[in-house]
Amino acid sequence: MDDRDLLKVVMDIVGRENCLDDCAVFPCGDRIMVITTDMLHRTTDFVPGMSDWQAGWMSAAVTLSDIASMGAAPEFILIAVGLDDWKCLAGVMQGARDCCRKFGAKIIGGDIDRHGELTVVTTGLGAVEPEHLIRRTGAKVGDLVCITGTPGQAQAWLDGYHQFEKALFEPQPRVEEGRKLGKAGVSAMMDDSDGIALSLYDLMSVNTCGFSLDSEKLPVPAGIPFDQARNLALYGGGDYELIFTIAPELFPVPGVSATVIGSVTARKEVLVDGTPLEKRGYQHRWE
Amino acid sequence: MDDRDLLKVVMDIVGRENCLDDCAVFPCGDRIMVITTDMLHRTTDFVPGMSDWQAGWMSAAVTLSDIASMGAAPEFILIAVGLDDWKCLAGVMQGARDCCRKFGAKIIGGDIDRHGELTVVTTGLGAVEPEHLIRRTGAKVGDLVCITGTPGQAQAWLDGYHQFEKALFEPQPRVEEGRKLGKAGVSAMMDDSDGIALSLYDLMSVNTCGFSLDSEKLPVPAGIPFDQARNLALYGGGDYELIFTIAPELFPVPGVSATVIGSVTARKEVLVDGTPLEKRGYQHRWE
Repeated sequence: MDDRDLLKVVMDIVGRENCLDDCAVFPCGDRIMVITTDMLHRTTDFVPGMSDWQAGWMSAAVTLSDIASMGAAPEFILIAVGLDDWKCLAGVMQGARDCCRKFGAKIIGGDIDRHGELTVVTTGLGAVEPEHLIRRTGAKVGDLVCITGTPGQAQAWLDGYHQFEKALFEPQPRVEEGRKLGKAGVSAMMDDSDGIALSLYDLMSVNTCGFSLDSEKLPVPAGIPFDQARNLALYGGGDYELIFTIAPELFPVPGVSATVIGSVTARKEVLVDGTPLEKRGYQHRWE
Repeated sequence: MDDRDLLKVVMDIVGRENCLDDCAVFPCGDRIMVITTDMLHRTTDFVPGMSDWQAGWMSAAVTLSDIASMGAAPEFILIAVGLDDWKCLAGVMQGARDCCRKFGAKIIGGDIDRHGELTVVTTGLGAVEPEHLIRRTGAKVGDLVCITGTPGQAQAWLDGYHQFEKALFEPQPRVEEGRKLGKAGVSAMMDDSDGIALSLYDLMSVNTCGFSLDSEKLPVPAGIPFDQARNLALYGGGDYELIFTIAPELFPVPGVSATVIGSVTARKEVLVDGTPLEKRGYQHRWE
């Protein structure tokens, strides 16, 4: 069983419509609030060598990234910290606070729990004008497929390229880019935290179209043989870039550094260089 | 170190004003939204014998109780589940959904994580008219101190009185009571999840007054010698009753079953039968 199998279990219980986007949404006066929650913990997410401050930073960043992927501006974070060692707490909270400060959010609440290993669950709230809310649905045939930044760097560190430590240890959510892309009217968006391949399969599952990538257009981590770098970009986890579809006439979006990596196709399949893209990436697994 | 020591660490980092109530609050059109997050897990919270469904129920209930304690009506829940065994997921989600349904909330999002033990973090959102929002601050000298229901039953199960299993395994948040008390204008409120004693010390820490209890007035679990039952009620954890202060002329509140257990005093101390109440109850501890 993997995350996506289990998501089907959840859909049957709480309704498919509550499981489709990076964030849930609800109306708030004349705006839309988006809300998301993410669980991270030591053995899976906080790799050896990461400081408490970095664990806190990462915990806030992954949540801010989900908010950004809806075109929303982050407002509030709540942070529940399960602690094996109480001395971690200050560092974790300072890291989360500093990440929030950088990206315009504020910590307004949380919980402290005694736990067998450091476990941090951040819940993030953002706000967006209804007309600028972006979802995973909405991709149109003929749209460009684009990605911000350089995917694959976090996985490159995990695979031994330690020059990419910052990418994995201190991810920078694309908050400003998400707002600009939302205002520009991109057609669909999500973050690529489980890798480009799984993200495109996730997008395909809620749209009626498919995607075709050109691997030569992929921005890849520098200093790594191309075939390996391409695989890192397509299948690696731990990145927090935004992957989006956009009508060709709207690209590029001023102030957003992004690369066209393919196009939206009528056939419901994900291709790279004309052949089916493997459906693999960062997943939790249970036996 | 215990929870309350660590809360001081957090206050220094995120600001004391963000750590004072059962929920954080933010404006939402002409209403106030309240939001809270709670981490529960197998070794600490889901006692042996508890089903997955009950673990899910409890996870939602503790969050709904925090919302009720602000006078708000629950609206939405997000639920992050860390799973050692994927087969737990359906039961946990069904229990959380059933609790939400009973109390008028809806699950709108969440996260699934692989974890070393079952860990559930629920985030709850509620809404309240600004004039009916109740906080921990606001207690006035001469107010009555009251509690809903019968405290001490959950702790009674933990101490071997297994007739109280339902109280611990399937807590019933006082959602309807919270709304009625908010509309009636109680002066301060919180839930007593760490016991009456710690709750009153928490209330004293944010008010300028103290509290005096009369132990003979305490509603206590039936069928237990009085001295022990009294201690269960004062110091036991795992209850989700509402403890509140209210002007005498406003009591009783129609439709709310509650007992007067004491009064608000000018001296900043917590007394029971004229002597200082021990400051102990349910706390997490770290060495």
